[in-house]
Amino acid sequence: MIETISWKNGTLTFLDQTKLPVEVVYEQQKDIRQVWDSIRQLRVRGAPALGVAGAYGLLLGMQDKQQLPADEFLSGIKQAAAYLNSSRPTAVNLSWGLQRMVARAEALKNKTSHELWAELEKEAVLIHSEDKELCRRIGENGKALISDGSGILTHCNAGALCSTGIGTATAPMYTAFNEGRRFKVFADETRPLLQGARLTSWELQQAGLDVTLICDNMAAFMMSSGYIDLVITGTDRVAANGDTANKIGTMGVAILAHHFHIPFYVACPSSTFDMHTPTGSGIPIEERGADEVLFFGERRTGPEGMKVRNPAFDVTPHDLITGFITENGIVRPPFAENLQKAFHA
Amino acid sequence: MIETISWKNGTLTFLDQTKLPVEVVYEQQKDIRQVWDSIRQLRVRGAPALGVAGAYGLLLGMQDKQQLPADEFLSGIKQAAAYLNSSRPTAVNLSWGLQRMVARAEALKNKTSHELWAELEKEAVLIHSEDKELCRRIGENGKALISDGSGILTHCNAGALCSTGIGTATAPMYTAFNEGRRFKVFADETRPLLQGARLTSWELQQAGLDVTLICDNMAAFMMSSGYIDLVITGTDRVAANGDTANKIGTMGVAILAHHFHIPFYVACPSSTFDMHTPTGSGIPIEERGADEVLFFGERRTGPEGMKVRNPAFDVTPHDLITGFITENGIVRPPFAENLQKAFHA
Repeated sequence: MIETISWKNGTLTFLDQTKLPVEVVYEQQKDIRQVWDSIRQLRVRGAPALGVAGAYGLLLGMQDKQQLPADEFLSGIKQAAAYLNSSRPTAVNLSWGLQRMVARAEALKNKTSHELWAELEKEAVLIHSEDKELCRRIGENGKALISDGSGILTHCNAGALCSTGIGTATAPMYTAFNEGRRFKVFADETRPLLQGARLTSWELQQAGLDVTLICDNMAAFMMSSGYIDLVITGTDRVAANGDTANKIGTMGVAILAHHFHIPFYVACPSSTFDMHTPTGSGIPIEERGADEVLFFGERRTGPEGMKVRNPAFDVTPHDLITGFITENGIVRPPFAENLQKAFHA
Repeated sequence: MIETISWKNGTLTFLDQTKLPVEVVYEQQKDIRQVWDSIRQLRVRGAPALGVAGAYGLLLGMQDKQQLPADEFLSGIKQAAAYLNSSRPTAVNLSWGLQRMVARAEALKNKTSHELWAELEKEAVLIHSEDKELCRRIGENGKALISDGSGILTHCNAGALCSTGIGTATAPMYTAFNEGRRFKVFADETRPLLQGARLTSWELQQAGLDVTLICDNMAAFMMSSGYIDLVITGTDRVAANGDTANKIGTMGVAILAHHFHIPFYVACPSSTFDMHTPTGSGIPIEERGADEVLFFGERRTGPEGMKVRNPAFDVTPHDLITGFITENGIVRPPFAENLQKAFHA
């Protein structure tokens, strides 16, 4: 499987996903500003990967501060975490990973800064290995949804490239495929940044799956023509009632799936459930720059001076969701009740 | 208003819409092959404009054949019409315009080829002026749907650029605007060829309307956020039961509008109603090349060797349509009955 993030001997490397599928470039992260920028510019992206990237980014940011007194080092950790957290507002996993690192640091008493950093490195490596394992378990729990000969639609990239393992939405696909089942995947290209075209279709093609790329506005046609039996997407944050923030366009796909009576599943690790946010209306929606819509590389696609909306996410109401595929099994409605049970038992 | 097609002293000129919004280039059509290619490559496009382009294209193709005997000239007209009709299969207006020219030629007895051509020129000019008048009347009949302060979503380009007048879907907008009403238009960019980004947003901006460009997959977000009170699109062919073929993605917009209880109107001249096709399943859907999805100009957006689907149209089921805005008024359900009344009274 592709390695999106690596940490070796104090060196943090990200696969630069903005260059895919044309170039496969690994970029060493020299400092925390570069990590912030890599997250902001989507060089590293995807909810689960952002938890790992944040943890390692924090570690990198504190690497050359180990000569500080322990109390200054600890407050430096908090500052660095807040700084990295400001890079993208919607995904809960980034703040989840950062908070876990900060909490770990706070829990360690009477340590030198050097010892603290070494403990934080262990924590980041643990978050990383846990992420791989979470993906594996999501795959195990979701694989039975995929039958031989079925058609699956996915939106954006909730694939290996969004994680450090086999992804979330793609985990059931990779697992079913490795067990010998054969099926068709349809990847929405996912404007404006084309994560479906550039990332999902590329990684599934690389792995030998049968994948077909479509434009976002072709999903209804494919559903009405009988090609789609199942939709699986990822998510960046799920509210306590099951309302689900994910890449812009996901709500539209969910409404179409509902119209055509096609099951709509969301795959994610537990860290994506934000039980402190009661409903989707409490999830901040990142609005990105107009040029993402008005240009394609150097090529202008919209007129000069054109007004643009560019919300990066939307919130799919819980009543359009068939179930959440998590590392602990599939959670089904009623979500308000069953998510409470699953996460606060 | 922009002039998409002009015929002056035997010279046919098209505005090359593939170069918009970056360049405004008028291209003289030298022969019928160039016209075929211009239609095929979407340099001239849009259902109503194709009727006019076909008529003039046929005229141009026969211009240097006026020395032929009348019977050969007439069979040449039929061949030329069949040739031009092969350039795009879905829009009924192209074949409508061509058939009207052929029928006119067949109806004229005892004419020389030269006289026949002169009569055909009158017919093409008549089709052209009728198109402008049809657009104007669609605007008059639809303008009352648009209130001050409302938000209107449109998909693809059914604007002035698709016609030789003020367009179809845009006709009520231009008319209401000229009467002083102020409202917001949201234009879906319309992948893969971005007619919404390149054409609709450009022409509305040029005319001074308040227009905002969104990606196709943002329509659900805009509707759920309360920005959209009304959807108006064009169409390439309407079956006798009201099933409506239009640019890929229209069906998805109609399903979303239905979900959010937003009225969904289709604006078109009567020539778009194909009463010989009982339902939408009888409308051929053009499937275009993979490179439209895999490239953006020179820039690759999808992996090499990727499988792609690229249907250029979809068919919106009649039960998702609130009404058809035509030159003769708004036709409302039940469509099977009311379209019969409107066109076969």
